[in-house]
Amino acid sequence: MTLLAEALQEIRPIDSRWIDSARERQLQLTKPPGSLGRLEEIANRCVAIRKTFEITACHPLIALFAADHGVCAEGVSAYPQEVTAQMVLNFLAGGAAINALARACDIQLQVVDVGVASLLPSAPGLVHRRLRSGTRNFCVEPAMTEDEMHAALAAAIELAHASVADGCDLLGTGEMGIGNTTSASAIAAALTHQPVDALVGPGAGADDAIMRRKSAAIERALALHSAHLSDPLGVLRTLGGFEIAAMCGFVLGAAACRVPVVTDGFIATAAAALAVAISPAAGGYIFASHRSAEPGHVCFLRAIDQEPLLDLGMRLGEGTGAALGMKIIQAAIAAFTQMATFSSAGVSSK
Amino acid sequence: MTLLAEALQEIRPIDSRWIDSARERQLQLTKPPGSLGRLEEIANRCVAIRKTFEITACHPLIALFAADHGVCAEGVSAYPQEVTAQMVLNFLAGGAAINALARACDIQLQVVDVGVASLLPSAPGLVHRRLRSGTRNFCVEPAMTEDEMHAALAAAIELAHASVADGCDLLGTGEMGIGNTTSASAIAAALTHQPVDALVGPGAGADDAIMRRKSAAIERALALHSAHLSDPLGVLRTLGGFEIAAMCGFVLGAAACRVPVVTDGFIATAAAALAVAISPAAGGYIFASHRSAEPGHVCFLRAIDQEPLLDLGMRLGEGTGAALGMKIIQAAIAAFTQMATFSSAGVSSK
Repeated sequence: MTLLAEALQEIRPIDSRWIDSARERQLQLTKPPGSLGRLEEIANRCVAIRKTFEITACHPLIALFAADHGVCAEGVSAYPQEVTAQMVLNFLAGGAAINALARACDIQLQVVDVGVASLLPSAPGLVHRRLRSGTRNFCVEPAMTEDEMHAALAAAIELAHASVADGCDLLGTGEMGIGNTTSASAIAAALTHQPVDALVGPGAGADDAIMRRKSAAIERALALHSAHLSDPLGVLRTLGGFEIAAMCGFVLGAAACRVPVVTDGFIATAAAALAVAISPAAGGYIFASHRSAEPGHVCFLRAIDQEPLLDLGMRLGEGTGAALGMKIIQAAIAAFTQMATFSSAGVSSK
Repeated sequence: MTLLAEALQEIRPIDSRWIDSARERQLQLTKPPGSLGRLEEIANRCVAIRKTFEITACHPLIALFAADHGVCAEGVSAYPQEVTAQMVLNFLAGGAAINALARACDIQLQVVDVGVASLLPSAPGLVHRRLRSGTRNFCVEPAMTEDEMHAALAAAIELAHASVADGCDLLGTGEMGIGNTTSASAIAAALTHQPVDALVGPGAGADDAIMRRKSAAIERALALHSAHLSDPLGVLRTLGGFEIAAMCGFVLGAAACRVPVVTDGFIATAAAALAVAISPAAGGYIFASHRSAEPGHVCFLRAIDQEPLLDLGMRLGEGTGAALGMKIIQAAIAAFTQMATFSSAGVSSK
């Protein structure tokens, strides 16, 4: 059996009875009922995910998957493709936004090359799960083969399992890949059947001409691959990226391990939406960290049935939103597990 | 000269040229322009507050001011007044929500008694700045005397100065005081002239009967003190609480020290709105952490001209929202100060 098939077999819907028990417990804590708002919902769901009141989030980890995209040949990005590799080196040197945010939030960062176009040096901290020098141009052929897709999914499922085995109790996703908003917008169009123009945004800073090329590339791809877009794995294989496949696998792996997993922005939520399309029960394990400024993000949030925790106008990716969201989740868990009860603290209730 | 007069003299509007310089710097950092959204605005304003690019937020501190309210005699709270003192003991024992959140976010918590009704034991970690056993019932007389108000303001200004002298570089406010949503709603009505009913909410969990008593108490107080409500110090003295006066002083003290100060929910933002009414230039130093579920909060946010960083349906007070907001600010500062530039990291720009 493949790692994907195994993961899918292991993923169970979260048990709402645990949420009910957690709600009861919340009422005993020294605060007016419901006064921690969404922090209470977060903790209650973590209880259901972990099936215990002894929830923790001491070892958070963000897996940042990097890969390149063949569709860049269509001129869909404001930045040259070499920026993917340059940014990976920046991650390894600690100079990117996600490094600063992960340090500020005390989150472990794992950088994984799943298919950067240029060969990267062997560097401490870089995890090599390289499938190919970027995907193929999905305007002319499927982005990846079946085998490549399954290898990307399996690599990330295995990384999720290994992280949990290492003690990680809160996982997050992040990505880097020049051109990947075009892939994510194509996935949005395939999954939701909404008009392409409404799903295409500026990404890292595309002007109108680039945005038109993004839309045109997606329209061509949707027509070319129409026979394969009725199932999520077909969408992922034909229109996806290696980092998107990996994040999809990482979410499924986290759900299989019963660990909460936090999505980042537009691209990461595309991967989460695919994961939920593949395994609806995985949705219970996912928290959406933030609302991206990218216009297509909302349809993925709807697909995973999540209201994001933050809305700060961010649109950077890398896991930057996930880092902030994970801090909120840690706070929610801290309140649930560390607060005194009315009776233990001798506080009068209503 | 009083400490208040000195603080008001020291508070200078933040210099927009520093914001412009920070914006220029942001463009050099390895991210698409503007892609960190509000994190960029936060860091830019911190640069203007501190007048340097070398901004830090290594030593955050929340001052949690506790006091009781004479207006409780009108039956305006779902909880008995003794809960204020019980919760202070809970803070000192580390069992309240703010303790858990401050630990999770690595924020120092300073608990200050500015007028709890019952005498509190001398306990390590409790700062005694007690003015009286709670305010007077503002339905029948001014909540405090001129001297008491100035003493509360001065005590908090002095605490803000002392915290900054101790190395604190990010300050936050929090409060505990049974009955203080009634005081805050009264302040909102006095400052904004909006209908009282629109400014009264459930607070810690008031039912309809209690909410009607809150509104009625506020209407009586507004009529009684109408001659004193045209200036913010008159509003504070007649309708405020000692913890509200203290948070107002703490905000002014932070602004005088040129340190960013983060408000919490409805009550803390009432204090910030009074601070801005007293010293409009103080507004530049304030960050609103979160949007409270309490209906009157929005008018205080408008008064301080701030969009909150978070919207998590919280309505607990204690500084719980401030703690989360301070973590966002730390992340914003970390990104600004730690990120590599395009040239230093060898990353191609557009």
